[in-house]
Amino acid sequence: MVKTPLLDKVKYPADMRGFSREDLKQLADEVRAEVIDAVSVTGGHLGAGLGVVELTVAIHAVFDTPNDKLIWDVGHQCYPHKVLTGRRDRIRTLRKGGGLSGFTKRAESEYDPFGAAHSSTSISAGMGFATARDLSGKDGHVISVIGDGSITAGMAYEAMNNAGATDSRQIVILNDNDMSIAPPVGAMSHMLAKMISSGGYQKMRGAGRAIVKDAPRPIKGTVRKAEEYTRGMFMGGTWFEELGFYYVGPVDGHDMDALLSVLENVKNMKRGPTLIHVVTQKGKGYAPAENSADKYHGVSKFNVVTGEQSKSIPNAPSYTSVFGGQLAKHAEKDDKIVGITAAMPGGTGMNIFGKAFPDRMFDVGIAEQHAVTFAAGLAAEGFRPFCAIYSTFLQRGYDQVVHDVAIQNLPVRFAMDRAGLVGADGPTHAGAFDIAYLGCLPNFTLMAAADEADLARMVATAVIHDSGPIGFRYARGEATGIEIPENPEPLEIGKGRIMKQGSRVAILSYGTRLGEAMKAAEQLDVLGLSATVADARFAKPLDKDLVRRLADEHEVFITIEEGSVGGFGAFVLHELADSGRLDKGLKVRTMTLPDTFIDQDTPEKMYEEAGLHADAIVETVFKALGQEFNAQMNLA
Amino acid sequence: MVKTPLLDKVKYPADMRGFSREDLKQLADEVRAEVIDAVSVTGGHLGAGLGVVELTVAIHAVFDTPNDKLIWDVGHQCYPHKVLTGRRDRIRTLRKGGGLSGFTKRAESEYDPFGAAHSSTSISAGMGFATARDLSGKDGHVISVIGDGSITAGMAYEAMNNAGATDSRQIVILNDNDMSIAPPVGAMSHMLAKMISSGGYQKMRGAGRAIVKDAPRPIKGTVRKAEEYTRGMFMGGTWFEELGFYYVGPVDGHDMDALLSVLENVKNMKRGPTLIHVVTQKGKGYAPAENSADKYHGVSKFNVVTGEQSKSIPNAPSYTSVFGGQLAKHAEKDDKIVGITAAMPGGTGMNIFGKAFPDRMFDVGIAEQHAVTFAAGLAAEGFRPFCAIYSTFLQRGYDQVVHDVAIQNLPVRFAMDRAGLVGADGPTHAGAFDIAYLGCLPNFTLMAAADEADLARMVATAVIHDSGPIGFRYARGEATGIEIPENPEPLEIGKGRIMKQGSRVAILSYGTRLGEAMKAAEQLDVLGLSATVADARFAKPLDKDLVRRLADEHEVFITIEEGSVGGFGAFVLHELADSGRLDKGLKVRTMTLPDTFIDQDTPEKMYEEAGLHADAIVETVFKALGQEFNAQMNLA
Repeated sequence: MVKTPLLDKVKYPADMRGFSREDLKQLADEVRAEVIDAVSVTGGHLGAGLGVVELTVAIHAVFDTPNDKLIWDVGHQCYPHKVLTGRRDRIRTLRKGGGLSGFTKRAESEYDPFGAAHSSTSISAGMGFATARDLSGKDGHVISVIGDGSITAGMAYEAMNNAGATDSRQIVILNDNDMSIAPPVGAMSHMLAKMISSGGYQKMRGAGRAIVKDAPRPIKGTVRKAEEYTRGMFMGGTWFEELGFYYVGPVDGHDMDALLSVLENVKNMKRGPTLIHVVTQKGKGYAPAENSADKYHGVSKFNVVTGEQSKSIPNAPSYTSVFGGQLAKHAEKDDKIVGITAAMPGGTGMNIFGKAFPDRMFDVGIAEQHAVTFAAGLAAEGFRPFCAIYSTFLQRGYDQVVHDVAIQNLPVRFAMDRAGLVGADGPTHAGAFDIAYLGCLPNFTLMAAADEADLARMVATAVIHDSGPIGFRYARGEATGIEIPENPEPLEIGKGRIMKQGSRVAILSYGTRLGEAMKAAEQLDVLGLSATVADARFAKPLDKDLVRRLADEHEVFITIEEGSVGGFGAFVLHELADSGRLDKGLKVRTMTLPDTFIDQDTPEKMYEEAGLHADAIVETVFKALGQEFNAQMNLA
Repeated sequence: MVKTPLLDKVKYPADMRGFSREDLKQLADEVRAEVIDAVSVTGGHLGAGLGVVELTVAIHAVFDTPNDKLIWDVGHQCYPHKVLTGRRDRIRTLRKGGGLSGFTKRAESEYDPFGAAHSSTSISAGMGFATARDLSGKDGHVISVIGDGSITAGMAYEAMNNAGATDSRQIVILNDNDMSIAPPVGAMSHMLAKMISSGGYQKMRGAGRAIVKDAPRPIKGTVRKAEEYTRGMFMGGTWFEELGFYYVGPVDGHDMDALLSVLENVKNMKRGPTLIHVVTQKGKGYAPAENSADKYHGVSKFNVVTGEQSKSIPNAPSYTSVFGGQLAKHAEKDDKIVGITAAMPGGTGMNIFGKAFPDRMFDVGIAEQHAVTFAAGLAAEGFRPFCAIYSTFLQRGYDQVVHDVAIQNLPVRFAMDRAGLVGADGPTHAGAFDIAYLGCLPNFTLMAAADEADLARMVATAVIHDSGPIGFRYARGEATGIEIPENPEPLEIGKGRIMKQGSRVAILSYGTRLGEAMKAAEQLDVLGLSATVADARFAKPLDKDLVRRLADEHEVFITIEEGSVGGFGAFVLHELADSGRLDKGLKVRTMTLPDTFIDQDTPEKMYEEAGLHADAIVETVFKALGQEFNAQMNLA
């Protein structure tokens, strides 16, 4: 029998609520196929979404979304959810400029009551929704879906500890796929594995279907019985129960019958916080994903039949790999170097170091707070810890950076990847604020790499910098392609470099905008405005001599950085003001990221929108000089 | 028999290591008396220290500190520890300028291997020390002592989850006094209470002494047996064991025999991470503390005999109480207002609100991350959440502020107490960075109150500000004493106020330095430099009209704030630069906190050290004008 396609009939979840269980299974298969096809065109997070196809269908079938609130943790597993919530027609615009976000996003749909992209926020947010419901005397459900990786973050525990002490009805679905981005670490993952491998769950998997099929359907009066049934069927969960959660599971997350029964039963319970432990397989239902080590966590475009990804051939190594390689090289001669990552060994290049020195690489899980203070403890004992955390994720360890590292002046080395705008991951992953939030801290030394040779020198600088904390930021993606010296020399602390000497205009760049600054200078030269370009290298300590000299010797002084206000440009202005350099007049302008969150696009387009490209520099110079800027000029 | 005093013989822990158990008990009594006497003179954290007197003596007697590393979480319970580690002669300088810190501090003693003051860092730091030891092939113990309040923070869980998955030897002592600053909240505290109230522990308390006395002393060969014995004697702890910790307890933390036996046994075990659950009583051994509701958590000077505290009579209400009172008043008419505190109901004034509206006040425990995102969830549902967190502690929720609040533009209200320098608590509690770390975020509105009437207006402003996140900062301690209007009007967003019109010098203040600015202006007027003083009220959006006008109409332009570089002054400079106000020259100077961490003292002296008092303003103006400043001038 040829099955009639069902997905075409489902624009919103309400459209599937009359479906039979068999129809829902078919719908799930169609959603899976749709997601695979879409991501083969767009690239993006595939494995996580494939793992929750049945779960997504079951939740929307059982619960009254969007009135019931469904909150996806991280949100990178939400592509099936988007397909089923009015966004199928745009699913092939995922992560593109003007297209759908790769995460949940409030502005996009009422089916996304709370956006995400960083991990472990969903239980806290869910408790906010549940509390609002209770205070309003309203009814309805709040469902947070969180992965076993995300639940290792302290924030999730804080939320469970708080929610578990209340009577507020809140459902947490633990999506246990034994895999976040990298294989999971920590005691929690051992505990979950133990629950799953124990006899109860294994038997249930075998006999499960039959048992669940005959489960009493919850109707008025039998609710209590159904509850007992659901509960009695499973085992384990003491840990969650001690935290005040009613534990149900483990449940096979690809068994639609089991999911529907359990969700319906839980829905009909009159209970406080409940945790449903669902076991899924990342990449489920697509062989190339299932067979891949990272389960196709994040992929580029690929061939659906073969699964082959069309990775573009890079012109240069990534900054990430340069960092990892350089660190490993130093570690050959220096056994005090240790590496720390918070569940991102691949993303940070720490895997390169870890491969060479497995005993000195520590993946602490999604636990940036712990990562920072663990590093501080190591530094206190004379080690040279490199804590490699994306700029955006270091925000989560900010208090530890201030309190445990800066105040104690401990030489923790922060390798801050993904500085600046990051492209398809959009505003939630932008490394926009680290210059401001670290630059205000006493004792810190801060650098930004303009190219891979300088990044290598900054790693060398950080290695020997034992007098206090030091951080260096670098961009996402490919470096510039220049040669990296065999033995990169450490930099002189607090000294920038002149890249090109001019006379009338000074452009002082911090980070990878240096290339655009050079382009702008060439244009300016052609237009008769002789331009000096300097690379500050350090935001802290600032190269005061360089700043003063540029101010004294030029009419126009531009700063440019891939960061917010209150960062490098601000430090330059503080110095210019307080040294009296502004008393007699200086046409100084600061070019920073604008005071908005910029949606995803290619990095180039995002920087154009931000006004941080060569043309914008030229235009800023012209405006400073009170001259009309004509975009045609630079064609000269 | 008159006992010979023992404490005089103990300058360092090594001096007591030959003591008998009876001597150690006596020593503990003497330490307790010494701490009570010292704090009666200095004021400070008393209750926590009294609760760990026996534990402190026992740890130092059993372990080889400072070679073994003892890390106190928070560190406010460390006064007995300081008395026993070479600092008794200075114990009456606690929390005073030039004196001992009220917390542990690396710079102070080798017995403080890791400083603290914020909670929940000790297990992470301990793991750093343990890992360093292992990598170095060394021996020795690492002991972290953490309270039941501190263990509710996510960071502690992150550390346990990581440590519990290793074989690294690390001892965590859970000091369970069922009380942090306020009574504890959350599921964890229920769980601990259950462990203690169960039969096993109660019986042990009764029969404990006899049992422990006969415990096999761990000698080579019997270690294993001793371990089994220690373990078998107690019960509970599944939750910690699931996290990979070997659980021992609960142990009566005032029973020296029990403590010594357990610590000796644990010391001799060859084990990975171990958690010893010690039950103590906050304020133990000093009746006025035991009988007080807050167990003398933090006290001013007091009469040792009566326990009566010599609270100085305030001249004005505290900013904290003004905030709490105003919020409660608004809440009478507005049932969408909810209040959130992270374990600081009293410290934030949220207790005033909570007394009036217990159902709308949420104490989430030491869990700033969760507090912020919980508030974001409430805001997403149309509530008006006020999240009251000290400036310094909001650092711990920074990523949530960025990712869950700012990016989603949700109207969470942040009441930031303890902005600026805070006196006796020193640099770890200074609210120095919030202007910088929040000012860089798009969508935020930021205010600082110069007096209590303005604070009241800022609360009113925040109540009706539904278009995005808003924060307002205010100082620790007494307000200025001016009248608060009956119905404070909301402020116009982004508008400052002129306090005094002059002509040559402009002083633009953000926050409570306004008083000093006014004083400075009077001096300047006398000295013939007519000064304008303005209160910016908003750091974001900046009052650009006001800034430009001040720049256009004055020769000298001073900004002043109780914050770091990269904050208010930086935003003014960005605006001046980018609007071309600096092109023709302006004697602009920014007065911020200096780029150092300032040790505890009176707030007045700290601000003098910081150079943010009236004389410093006058001096800055003179320097800007190229004139010699003579400190005698202001006597004119």
